[in-house]
Amino acid sequence: MKPDGASLIGFGSSGPGGASFQAFDPVRGVNFEPSFSSATNEDAGRAAQLAAAAAPGWARLPGAARSQFLHAIATNLEAKTADLVARAMLETGLAEARLKGEVARTCGQLRLYGQAAERGDWRDVRIETAQPERQPLPKPDHRSMLRPLGPVVVFGSSNFPFAYSVAGGDTASAFAAGCPVIVKAHPAHPGTSELVGRLILHAVRDCGLPEGTFSLLFDAGFAVGQALVKHPLVKAVGFTGSLGGGRALVDLAAARPEPIPVYAEMGSINPVFILPGALAERAAGIVEGLHASATVGVGQFCTNPGLIVLQRSAAAEQFMMSLTAKLAATPEAAMLTAGICGKFRTGVEARARTAGVKPVGASLLATDRTAQSRASSLPQTGAAPVWFETTALEFLGNPALSQEIFGPSSLVVWCKDGPEMLEVARHLEGNLTATLQAGAAEAQTQGALIDVLAAKAGRVILNGYPTGLEVSPAIVHSGPYPATSDGGRSTSVGTRALTRWARLVCYQGFADELLPPELQNANPVGALRLVDGEWTRAAVA
Amino acid sequence: MKPDGASLIGFGSSGPGGASFQAFDPVRGVNFEPSFSSATNEDAGRAAQLAAAAAPGWARLPGAARSQFLHAIATNLEAKTADLVARAMLETGLAEARLKGEVARTCGQLRLYGQAAERGDWRDVRIETAQPERQPLPKPDHRSMLRPLGPVVVFGSSNFPFAYSVAGGDTASAFAAGCPVIVKAHPAHPGTSELVGRLILHAVRDCGLPEGTFSLLFDAGFAVGQALVKHPLVKAVGFTGSLGGGRALVDLAAARPEPIPVYAEMGSINPVFILPGALAERAAGIVEGLHASATVGVGQFCTNPGLIVLQRSAAAEQFMMSLTAKLAATPEAAMLTAGICGKFRTGVEARARTAGVKPVGASLLATDRTAQSRASSLPQTGAAPVWFETTALEFLGNPALSQEIFGPSSLVVWCKDGPEMLEVARHLEGNLTATLQAGAAEAQTQGALIDVLAAKAGRVILNGYPTGLEVSPAIVHSGPYPATSDGGRSTSVGTRALTRWARLVCYQGFADELLPPELQNANPVGALRLVDGEWTRAAVA
Repeated sequence: MKPDGASLIGFGSSGPGGASFQAFDPVRGVNFEPSFSSATNEDAGRAAQLAAAAAPGWARLPGAARSQFLHAIATNLEAKTADLVARAMLETGLAEARLKGEVARTCGQLRLYGQAAERGDWRDVRIETAQPERQPLPKPDHRSMLRPLGPVVVFGSSNFPFAYSVAGGDTASAFAAGCPVIVKAHPAHPGTSELVGRLILHAVRDCGLPEGTFSLLFDAGFAVGQALVKHPLVKAVGFTGSLGGGRALVDLAAARPEPIPVYAEMGSINPVFILPGALAERAAGIVEGLHASATVGVGQFCTNPGLIVLQRSAAAEQFMMSLTAKLAATPEAAMLTAGICGKFRTGVEARARTAGVKPVGASLLATDRTAQSRASSLPQTGAAPVWFETTALEFLGNPALSQEIFGPSSLVVWCKDGPEMLEVARHLEGNLTATLQAGAAEAQTQGALIDVLAAKAGRVILNGYPTGLEVSPAIVHSGPYPATSDGGRSTSVGTRALTRWARLVCYQGFADELLPPELQNANPVGALRLVDGEWTRAAVA
Repeated sequence: MKPDGASLIGFGSSGPGGASFQAFDPVRGVNFEPSFSSATNEDAGRAAQLAAAAAPGWARLPGAARSQFLHAIATNLEAKTADLVARAMLETGLAEARLKGEVARTCGQLRLYGQAAERGDWRDVRIETAQPERQPLPKPDHRSMLRPLGPVVVFGSSNFPFAYSVAGGDTASAFAAGCPVIVKAHPAHPGTSELVGRLILHAVRDCGLPEGTFSLLFDAGFAVGQALVKHPLVKAVGFTGSLGGGRALVDLAAARPEPIPVYAEMGSINPVFILPGALAERAAGIVEGLHASATVGVGQFCTNPGLIVLQRSAAAEQFMMSLTAKLAATPEAAMLTAGICGKFRTGVEARARTAGVKPVGASLLATDRTAQSRASSLPQTGAAPVWFETTALEFLGNPALSQEIFGPSSLVVWCKDGPEMLEVARHLEGNLTATLQAGAAEAQTQGALIDVLAAKAGRVILNGYPTGLEVSPAIVHSGPYPATSDGGRSTSVGTRALTRWARLVCYQGFADELLPPELQNANPVGALRLVDGEWTRAAVA
């Protein structure tokens, strides 16, 4: 399996037209074959029209059929894992084991969301039966559930070439909810995107699904993505990436004549609060765990711990010395793209110049390391950990210190005591995660801090680390703005992700045989339903 | 109980400052005492600060306590129904029976949402227990649920002085979800608003709830509402009203540094498709039912049937003659405000001038009736039914004909056959409701039309009428844009309304006693929870 560089528009492909670009190997620092043609606005319009034509049929598709399709995609990905991983290694510089694991996670997501689609519980079916004799007015039979929104546009992310990209969580959950999907491929891994896209199209054909179920568009720039978000036939957007990119799409969608939802998962600094008791009990373990969480994937995770909040003490300084030694020993590695690395370097250079901020471990870790990188064997992409430290007072007074530096850079905030830690917590913007490291007895006393963290993050972690996300029915990958554009009301990971792509419809006064299967008396789908006030899988009597 | 004209800011009241205004009696055509002072931007800021200070305590408040508070509000409203209805009659011109019924509905909503808060099912609790032995990685314990967003601003609507106003559905559902509420009173019924607001404050005190739980602000203009929507401490907005007003708030909220959700329920023309079989079987009944639905409350319902779609036939013409006779016999009545009536008159005059549009029943019903109104005993507010007719071809070609005229005016669209009816349905924008009148055997053949209507409306009604909304766990009062600003993903009526004011939070790795009660093993709240993949009210083993 090799990519050929054309966008996949329904069952066809884009013609020539847009600017061409190549994938970039961040380890060797070179572009490589083939050339990918940027799609045109006409391609975007055709993809939207095909998706809209497929949408009504998709809305009627039984959950079992959607599940079969998602399982078929997973099977296809597994059969071609070697090809996919080989291409992705070249395009991302990520390790084979990591990428194999990511393909497995992606297949797990596809199957989990497929099962959710088949089970039907996600539709929130509610039935109130008629009471024709009720006084003063008869009560009508009315039954409601979630129905798919229609064509969904998904923007692949740079940092997860599988799990948050072409067949990633947004695509899987939109398919599971009954929506056709148009993916705008991330130019950081176009070949991987094309291969995955073709495997999805194989599943579309094998399952006898209509053209327009899926399209994949390339673009070296932003025009195609913007055209898709503005297209009147597009009904929702999923995005994982930077705050700037996400907010631009959110603003574009909000300005449409018909505004549509953009579920953008954006920036997060993922604060880690480390209490004295935790250091007293487990300092060495926290050094290990935090170092791993902060450096895995060259820090390029949305859950990377970017803010470490400590109380000043001899034990805490000792802890930071141990951690610094481990960070200093962490080798430079290639970031995903030259652009990402460039932003990382600019970000750490700016932070190094910030008043009241010092490099952690001085020359070992801070700007000198960056200077070394520029002269390294990875001139365009090399990065090693660059940490900074400051005081709570400085942090509270300078909004720039709350901004994410995407990559292996964290900011240590020194507090004088618990109340100042709480003040730092209250000052936080929205985050995907917030972590508390506390001693066994200590956690019991931290109700106020835990409450503040729960108000600031989508996931609060006790004595763990923010990276490593469990994909499950209960997980929340979300958070108040700017972590997500919808303020954390939905999640992009976990089975709740399906509901993002749906709206409520109520049927009033319909005979049983005229209703969608989910709402019929016999409950042929077997979904959990709220029938006259009680949740049940039983048929309506 | 008499209003005194001051905004209620927490437990205090606004000082003098803003422009003053009086309530308007739409029947007598006069303003009357007392004078209401517009709140200032400082008042808005103080209300937001008080609400934000109360929010953390509110978020911790058990569902049972929120329910008790909502029940206390209902009890207070019931005890003062006579005073409330007397003031509302003067301010709205609505009939006593209607207003008494609306108070009863409002109290029913408060209690229903209170029960939902107490039961806790709305929080969507999900629990995945730990698997420390799992390979390759241990599975962490993680548990998630919906948590309140924080201070909510509610804009009272003009046309429901109780059910969609100060203690209406938005306020009740936000309280039930655990959010403090700031209401911007609608200037069409300021005295009613103040009386209801004071009864809410009595309940706040009686239940020992903090200052900032509730505030009520008056404004003759738009500045206070805008200041509230832009205030950084405000986290969500509820609105019921016009498309223009709703969209302005949506745009304001979207442009904030931190965008917040605005749940705006806006315009709707509520199409009614009447098939030949329905006329053959029940023409006289449909004349009665449709007339009642179209004229109740002088047409000032968001579910008013504003578009009637018929197939041309002798029977359909006979049907329209009967309906026209009833409409012609419908007396003029006072609309809610001079402003609403002015817009109604301007709207029908513009429609009367539209090419391809004819008045229904010629001089009986159309512009001449409007001219009569202007010379009537209700010079500023009088309105009687003014209907128009056009062809499907004209309707499909002129977007202006899809626009709502708020009040007792409907547009009849004549189709030549079923396919043309389907074409009209496909052309519709988003609506709160869509109604199908069909004969007993005929409905079976209308799958395509029903599917299109379900894609266009939040509630599809078979052989009923759009007005008269059942408040229940299963109801949907919502719809694709422009019916609602969020595209129908949520509902403003029914127990699902609570989820609008909440976001997801996941707790990972927490000891049982550190978790909120809803997430604890013993399930002290008794909520339905998804535990390791199964929905249950049982404790975690």
